[in-house]
Amino acid sequence: MSNKKASQTDTSQPLVEREIPDDLMNIAEPDAEFLIASEKEGRVPTQRRALAVVVTDHPDAQPQDTSKLLTELLSEAEFQVDGVVTVKAKKSKIRQAIETAVVGGVDLVVTIGGTGVGPRDKTPEATAAVLDKQLPGVAQALRSSGQACGAVDACVSRGVSGISGSTVVVNLAPSRAALRDGMATLPPLVHFLITELQKHSLDG
Amino acid sequence: MSNKKASQTDTSQPLVEREIPDDLMNIAEPDAEFLIASEKEGRVPTQRRALAVVVTDHPDAQPQDTSKLLTELLSEAEFQVDGVVTVKAKKSKIRQAIETAVVGGVDLVVTIGGTGVGPRDKTPEATAAVLDKQLPGVAQALRSSGQACGAVDACVSRGVSGISGSTVVVNLAPSRAALRDGMATLPPLVHFLITELQKHSLDG
Amino acid sequence: MSNKKASQTDTSQPLVEREIPDDLMNIAEPDAEFLIASEKEGRVPTQRRALAVVVTDHPDAQPQDTSKLLTELLSEAEFQVDGVVTVKAKKSKIRQAIETAVVGGVDLVVTIGGTGVGPRDKTPEATAAVLDKQLPGVAQALRSSGQACGAVDACVSRGVSGISGSTVVVNLAPSRAALRDGMATLPPLVHFLITELQKHSLDG
Repeated sequence: MSNKKASQTDTSQPLVEREIPDDLMNIAEPDAEFLIASEKEGRVPTQRRALAVVVTDHPDAQPQDTSKLLTELLSEAEFQVDGVVTVKAKKSKIRQAIETAVVGGVDLVVTIGGTGVGPRDKTPEATAAVLDKQLPGVAQALRSSGQACGAVDACVSRGVSGISGSTVVVNLAPSRAALRDGMATLPPLVHFLITELQKHSLDG
Repeated sequence: MSNKKASQTDTSQPLVEREIPDDLMNIAEPDAEFLIASEKEGRVPTQRRALAVVVTDHPDAQPQDTSKLLTELLSEAEFQVDGVVTVKAKKSKIRQAIETAVVGGVDLVVTIGGTGVGPRDKTPEATAAVLDKQLPGVAQALRSSGQACGAVDACVSRGVSGISGSTVVVNLAPSRAALRDGMATLPPLVHFLITELQKHSLDG
Repeated sequence: MSNKKASQTDTSQPLVEREIPDDLMNIAEPDAEFLIASEKEGRVPTQRRALAVVVTDHPDAQPQDTSKLLTELLSEAEFQVDGVVTVKAKKSKIRQAIETAVVGGVDLVVTIGGTGVGPRDKTPEATAAVLDKQLPGVAQALRSSGQACGAVDACVSRGVSGISGSTVVVNLAPSRAALRDGMATLPPLVHFLITELQKHSLDG
């Protein structure tokens, strides 16, 4: 199930003939020792892929820059962003969006919104239906750091987290604070989990 | 289901004719701008109502001042206290007390006790049976702050939290530390949730 | 069900006739007042018993000193260590090891490993099947302090905690950091729970 293609446009441009200071040479040169060490640690040179699913009944009210912020935060967390998808707050739509990403081999799906107490807040239920295993520790970490930073919607979020296939799926609360704080808390946890999942997929 | 009456005795007394310093006038005058802003934010002038349910097999052992403390803490948290009810540690009795409050349109029910590992600790089970949706984040926040402040019974509490109708229901552990710490942690979370519930009841 | 025998070898050796400084006398003498106070507080002179269950598919890879570390940490937490058992990562084997300890009247069973996202990580499922009551607060405290200390496997652990009979059962994540941090977090919580369980067993 590893449909992940190495980014082929990543090869460095042929250097134009000009004087380069010695210390910069070290930066330009690929360091073989470093690459071997990375591989041993399980750090794979191909970037991990992420998809964001924004759950909202008012797609027009969703400011355009939520999408931009999400892309930025996921990129900073060293994910290649496959896209930011907007879906209606319907259980079937949310579920379908997650399942498509799982089948497509995405490493991380982050949903935004639909984690509250309203009658249309169905993201946790839709997500739980897709998960093979719940990871209560990830949901706990998000609530706990939400409480610490004053993102009340993150603190009382009904959001769940877990594994579907070999994809990590995480529900975030919708406020901007919840988003920023959540994306600060998630990366070390999610990268650890993806590394574990990749180890087991090599075993199997 | 909004049986909440605006407190009609709240109109300020007609001012007796006497000299009032200018800066006090600002306090006495109702500030129209502030009231409009409050309304827009969803802050309603009517006070939110709370009920406390003390679960105990030894009602006489329950010090009279638990009731006083609870009333104080709920009032400080800006709730109008409908009462402090004491019930036996029987699942049916606990459930009945919560259900009566929910039907009566109370905004918050706090139970005290019955969250431990003894054979008669049945508050979480009785509460879960009444809830429409669990709110694991509220229970988590109570345990977490219980751990931080050394209220061990709050930290290892089996207590649950959630929504029944449009009432927030929360289980607290029985120690005095758990009570004080819990009532310090709850207010911002519960007021946020009640505001959300009121928004949705206006939508529906 | 209190098969706990007072350790009969604990009586101090008859003192050989020689000069003892006055201040050392106080250490040698049993302090009656202290013993009575301890008893009133529910602190029983007999030591509580613990068993560690190491779950691993590669028993040889398990360094010998994990066993030594576990014994040390449990002893420091004032438990008498019944032993460190190693079992294969099979649901039936894990379950059997826990059940044997519960029947034997052990106060605390700590399992190590099998809490991750791999196909052979089945400790939480095996443990949940043995528990009479889950204690989400203990699992939460372990994840929370794991997050704080950087033990990522403890933070995202699927481990559960609870009561089986009158035994407290706790799943720990396998890293050395998770082990050390977990065994720093557990003692006050577990001793509180055992005291509660002992009270109720006296009541019943």
